[in-house]
Amino acid sequence: MSTVPVLEKNVQEKVDAFNRLDEKLCHYNDVLGLLSWDSKTKAPKKGRSLFGKARGTLSTEAFKLAISEEMGELLTFLTEEKVWEQLDEATKACVAERKKNYDKSIKIPAEEYQEYVILVNDANEAWEEAREKNDFASYAPVLEKVLAFKKKFGEYYGYEGHPYNAMLNEFEPGLTVEKLDPLFKELREKSVELLNKIKASQSQPREDIFAQEYDVEAQKKFNQYILPLIGFDMEGGRLDETVHPFASSVNTGDVRITTRYLKDNVRSAIFGTIHEAGHGMYEQGVNPAFEGRVIRRGTSFGIHESQSRFLENMVGRSKEFWTYFYKDLQEHFPEQLQNVSLEDFYAATNRVDPSFIRVEADELTYNLHIMIRYEIEKGLFAGEYEVKDLPKVWNEKIEEYLGITPPTDTLGVLQDVHWSFGGFGYFPSYSLGNLYAAQILYTFIKEMPDFYDKIEQGDFMAIRGWLRENIHQYGKLYSPNELIVNVTGEELDAKYLVRYLEEKYSAIYQF
Amino acid sequence: MSTVPVLEKNVQEKVDAFNRLDEKLCHYNDVLGLLSWDSKTKAPKKGRSLFGKARGTLSTEAFKLAISEEMGELLTFLTEEKVWEQLDEATKACVAERKKNYDKSIKIPAEEYQEYVILVNDANEAWEEAREKNDFASYAPVLEKVLAFKKKFGEYYGYEGHPYNAMLNEFEPGLTVEKLDPLFKELREKSVELLNKIKASQSQPREDIFAQEYDVEAQKKFNQYILPLIGFDMEGGRLDETVHPFASSVNTGDVRITTRYLKDNVRSAIFGTIHEAGHGMYEQGVNPAFEGRVIRRGTSFGIHESQSRFLENMVGRSKEFWTYFYKDLQEHFPEQLQNVSLEDFYAATNRVDPSFIRVEADELTYNLHIMIRYEIEKGLFAGEYEVKDLPKVWNEKIEEYLGITPPTDTLGVLQDVHWSFGGFGYFPSYSLGNLYAAQILYTFIKEMPDFYDKIEQGDFMAIRGWLRENIHQYGKLYSPNELIVNVTGEELDAKYLVRYLEEKYSAIYQF
Repeated sequence: MSTVPVLEKNVQEKVDAFNRLDEKLCHYNDVLGLLSWDSKTKAPKKGRSLFGKARGTLSTEAFKLAISEEMGELLTFLTEEKVWEQLDEATKACVAERKKNYDKSIKIPAEEYQEYVILVNDANEAWEEAREKNDFASYAPVLEKVLAFKKKFGEYYGYEGHPYNAMLNEFEPGLTVEKLDPLFKELREKSVELLNKIKASQSQPREDIFAQEYDVEAQKKFNQYILPLIGFDMEGGRLDETVHPFASSVNTGDVRITTRYLKDNVRSAIFGTIHEAGHGMYEQGVNPAFEGRVIRRGTSFGIHESQSRFLENMVGRSKEFWTYFYKDLQEHFPEQLQNVSLEDFYAATNRVDPSFIRVEADELTYNLHIMIRYEIEKGLFAGEYEVKDLPKVWNEKIEEYLGITPPTDTLGVLQDVHWSFGGFGYFPSYSLGNLYAAQILYTFIKEMPDFYDKIEQGDFMAIRGWLRENIHQYGKLYSPNELIVNVTGEELDAKYLVRYLEEKYSAIYQF
Repeated sequence: MSTVPVLEKNVQEKVDAFNRLDEKLCHYNDVLGLLSWDSKTKAPKKGRSLFGKARGTLSTEAFKLAISEEMGELLTFLTEEKVWEQLDEATKACVAERKKNYDKSIKIPAEEYQEYVILVNDANEAWEEAREKNDFASYAPVLEKVLAFKKKFGEYYGYEGHPYNAMLNEFEPGLTVEKLDPLFKELREKSVELLNKIKASQSQPREDIFAQEYDVEAQKKFNQYILPLIGFDMEGGRLDETVHPFASSVNTGDVRITTRYLKDNVRSAIFGTIHEAGHGMYEQGVNPAFEGRVIRRGTSFGIHESQSRFLENMVGRSKEFWTYFYKDLQEHFPEQLQNVSLEDFYAATNRVDPSFIRVEADELTYNLHIMIRYEIEKGLFAGEYEVKDLPKVWNEKIEEYLGITPPTDTLGVLQDVHWSFGGFGYFPSYSLGNLYAAQILYTFIKEMPDFYDKIEQGDFMAIRGWLRENIHQYGKLYSPNELIVNVTGEELDAKYLVRYLEEKYSAIYQF
């Protein structure tokens, strides 16, 4: 029988004060999350910029609380060794997370940060215009400034080893170039090898199946139909429509995802919805006892992405998934699919097609898109590349990995928004998600050998149950590295994703 | 040429500080308004109570700001005679409004208010249960407590004359029993007279037209169709569905209204939508320069209600309105309406039917429902009635005014939510709205003699334009009494509503 440790009275008082402050900050963030969702889904056009000011007021208040004197004093007190030893695991995780943010926030001088906020706003506009006009040169000067700021911020934050580590740590706590380089090298080399085999294969999936128009209303019905069946709790969430799909959680009982419906691309909505449902189910599955504490959300961008990719790819792009759902899909689209066999449909959903745009890439080439960005970001922070050289570097790398050359920078180096908002270090999360997902998959199969049978029988509650028990419930209690070791018994290893890709594509492309 | 007065430097500094605080409070209230809208329209079931805590945190912060030391000092400084004289009209109105709330809020001891908040929460549950079980006795003790609190609050606030004046002033600044009694007496007596003539008339509108089922999807289409045409700006607002319709404004560019669709009551959605559009257009029409200031909203409950009633009744229930829209309505409901003449349809929309439930009442008997509540509330505050006597008093009054007796308290004294949340003084706003609306109507017609022609031609922009110029733009700049005098040249007088009702019903019922 475990006993609840009794804290010294003054420690208990400080813990209570910390929890109140932590909860207040969570409430502000919950509200800000909802406001962001509303601005993208429901807010009428004319009110958005006005309401932006109200959001600004709340953000500022939340920021002030997070770096308040009270927060500083509480964090100092609670992290003294004698006090720290007395804290329970969850409180330690909360204090550590708030301390990380506090330390980072107070390191950047307020005026500099203010200047930076204005800059990224300009940068975003410059990027939009440059992308539209295929004019990288007009965007380069402002991007250089953003980069200079981020380099300076990196110095403020501090790092060991490669200067890019300060950026990686933002999105994946503890991640470094030194850890990532060998993982990505293996993934890149094996992916290129696989791609060459695929290109050479005589057995190519049909292209025509998805080159048809699919009625948008029927798409909506199908998505609404499968969403609760695959495990997304509709009483604790909702599905809306946006140009750029996303998942956003207000609390564990209110998780909102979006998708988009394209007449000429039925896969976009189906796999987009499943992807966002994966993010959403992670947030729905966090231990409700964490509500009102900073550990209530997913532990990192990479682990979050592993949950969306797992559901989208390992589950949603499996043969067994479509064995269960294909008849339903045919009923929604009789004209398009009545003469398409399950086998042909499955192969087509997994067709590999090197293309210019990351967000439209297939499961294999997607990681190669990430490699390009990772190598460029690393080079920028090491001083090996300059911003003005990026179009050239970009095109060389995409030619090397995918064998294609973008006809314009709009279809190349200008395609992503991330750099314009200073999101250096963000891209690797996407491939990390794939790596984590595959490693989780093989542990899952070991522990539940009838994994694919469960999918084929439509028993998605069993799938969700395992993920919830092993991953979702923990929120931010563990770091991403602790979590993956707890779940799979070992550090992240690229061999699992490589194995998964090889098994999948050798079957489909018959090599 | 008017010149902008230059303020003394220290005054300017204080005005700036006040404006910043005023704006911050407005932002909190804008956000709280959106959260309330979201909880009623979009929030998934499971997250609502959790999110209630976040809303509570924000409300508390806003309340603290409103009664902060800084606010107190600024208000004291700015209302000193020498300073006050230097302020412009809008700043005066903002300071006065904040001061009124400040004075009220600090008068109630924090613990008492806390106790009251918990009590009304219980009272609401007790009311719901009592209504469901037709058991007034179970609700009476908690309602007595709510009443006792409100009486005490009234003493804290202070008042002159009748103790109920403290309540009236909450909803309609400056309103008193002494002013209201003669207005309501005239309205009540003339309404009862009219009702008797109507009952005796040989020319009764058809009952069968609205006793049919109307497809809900077609209702939605018709409502979405007319809403922008009658002047509600869809780029600065939206229409959603809720059980209890309401209007809620986030800012002048984001005003959200709701309606409900009942298969067996097509009038509910049509007139409900027009009613809420009237509220919404008021908020959309406030001077955008007032954004971020407390004067940005409508000036009182009564004036707000005048704008919704004006659009719903004076415009929406006019013969000319349906001359313009009836063909469209017939196209939406050919089966129900193809053999119904415009004349029969118009008469039926204005059919008078004494009934038990206020919210379902026609335009004439509605005010008699309000009289009952007004007289009961006044009697409770004067100590003439006790809570336990209310069912008896209620039934006597409804028998006297409407000639019907509710078979149950659920259909009588238990029907309204207002008392359970302590909303004594709220009900008169509804009839005040009707009184204001009629008085505004006759001024409108004087200034724009082709008022009804404009409606018949569908020129609702002309209608909105006049209302915006004369009423909407001013927000809270003027008190309700100042506004009605500015617009119509005289104090509120019941003769206009009486005249309007007599003209309308004598034509329809031919007496």
